Amino acid sequence: MRIRKAVVTAASPAQRRLPLQNLVDRDGQERSVLGILLEEIVRARVEEICVVVCPGDAGNYASVTGDHAGRVRFVEQTEPRGYGHAIHCARQFTAGEPFLHLVSDHLYVSRGEASCAAELIEVAEAENCSVSTVQATREGHLKEFGAVGGQRLAGRDRLYKVDTVLEKPTPTEAEQKIIVPGLRSGHYLCFFGMHVLTPGVMAILEELLLESKTGAVTLSAALSELARRERYLALQMTHRRYDLGARYGLLTAQLALGLSGRDRDEILSQLVELMALRETAAK
Amino acid sequence: MRIRKAVVTAASPAQRRLPLQNLVDRDGQERSVLGILLEEIVRARVEEICVVVCPGDAGNYASVTGDHAGRVRFVEQTEPRGYGHAIHCARQFTAGEPFLHLVSDHLYVSRGEASCAAELIEVAEAENCSVSTVQATREGHLKEFGAVGGQRLAGRDRLYKVDTVLEKPTPTEAEQKIIVPGLRSGHYLCFFGMHVLTPGVMAILEELLLESKTGAVTLSAALSELARRERYLALQMTHRRYDLGARYGLLTAQLALGLSGRDRDEILSQLVELMALRETAAK
Repeated sequence: MRIRKAVVTAASPAQRRLPLQNLVDRDGQERSVLGILLEEIVRARVEEICVVVCPGDAGNYASVTGDHAGRVRFVEQTEPRGYGHAIHCARQFTAGEPFLHLVSDHLYVSRGEASCAAELIEVAEAENCSVSTVQATREGHLKEFGAVGGQRLAGRDRLYKVDTVLEKPTPTEAEQKIIVPGLRSGHYLCFFGMHVLTPGVMAILEELLLESKTGAVTLSAALSELARRERYLALQMTHRRYDLGARYGLLTAQLALGLSGRDRDEILSQLVELMALRETAAK
Repeated sequence: MRIRKAVVTAASPAQRRLPLQNLVDRDGQERSVLGILLEEIVRARVEEICVVVCPGDAGNYASVTGDHAGRVRFVEQTEPRGYGHAIHCARQFTAGEPFLHLVSDHLYVSRGEASCAAELIEVAEAENCSVSTVQATREGHLKEFGAVGGQRLAGRDRLYKVDTVLEKPTPTEAEQKIIVPGLRSGHYLCFFGMHVLTPGVMAILEELLLESKTGAVTLSAALSELARRERYLALQMTHRRYDLGARYGLLTAQLALGLSGRDRDEILSQLVELMALRETAAK
């Protein structure tokens, strides 16, 4: 299987301004958050990208796509029916192909040269199935994420066969259903915000949306059903993701980008200067 | 004289997205850059604010005015005739009153409780004339700013009577025309980006615009003429301003805000965590 398409969701009303914010990327280029995500996607050899947006936001987003305008189309989520529904809005775009999926309120900072998206796609294409990136996450953060349970694949360091998916489980629920052998105690595999999804996921989303009539549908619900129907893997990432919607999320992401990129020294000296200023002011 | 009105210029096409960027202010509130500027203006007891924008930008800006929507109106600069022209676009709004003027691509971080705008207005109201805030700036930065020459007022620490205004002078020009007695060698008084301007400035701008027919007019040109016609002072600021359009300008401004505000400790610990991550990754 070859991943040629990507779906980016940016339709959560609370986060609709995040993809428009500007950051300086690791190469020292000033870009919008959306532009940085598009760059990551395109470098992973994806050819076409669909961004799912709130009604009326396409124009603003289109103005910050940078070099990749030609590869991007926009689809509106016209009903507030949840994250799963937002992905399903791109079904005519994916048209039966597997696709990379990213949320637009996270930023991914890889530890090496290869991007997070490129690493995920390489694994998914080789394994020929849906793969969700995950990260070992402390129990205290379970309330923020979807989480998976499963077994490590024999001979593979960071690859798991998923059998259970829970959306924001309680610690008790997690302890009963998704303990993963081999992880540190009190840690669970939580979603990292980046997936390769097969057409089977779109089919399941369709069913769940029909069942719920007008209600909201989560991606976790669809992935839970996917684990019953298809081979579905989780890839544990050693990279970092930054939730831009968190308190000081943009600052933290910018610092992480800057400190891992070519301008590390410039940023460190700015920091020292700012600290010195503050010390002078406090006297 | 009492300053009830403010004019914010945001009509430079290169910088039109800056006021829409989000930062967390010193009180820990997430706001747009425009929202932070409006808050500073309103806290200085200004009642009405006019934002001069590029055609078509009013809607986007209006969506980020936060609590101050009721005090703000927008005026479009429909011709690219420079900074002086942008201010002149607000002449019907100022309607013969003196006004506070701020650029929208700078952020002002005061050292104490009183804001930069409040300090400026207090001086201008007491002195009953136009006052520009300035900062002692090294010769090497002259190419970025307007600069003033003049004499320190007797018995006043940071207040100067302006006799000369030059827009981005060369070091030679500056040495010949705007050396200010008492400043450190190689330092000049450059604009800080915040002014209180009398109606006389609008009249001069009108004349300069008529003279130049369709050309651009700088604010410095008008202030240079103002110094010949009216008492015009410069207030040297000990606060800091951050140019958001500079490289890593948003990052630096956010760090300066954060490190001078109530979340200083939270930001310092995030920094330490990020540094540690990087050290681990580098191994």
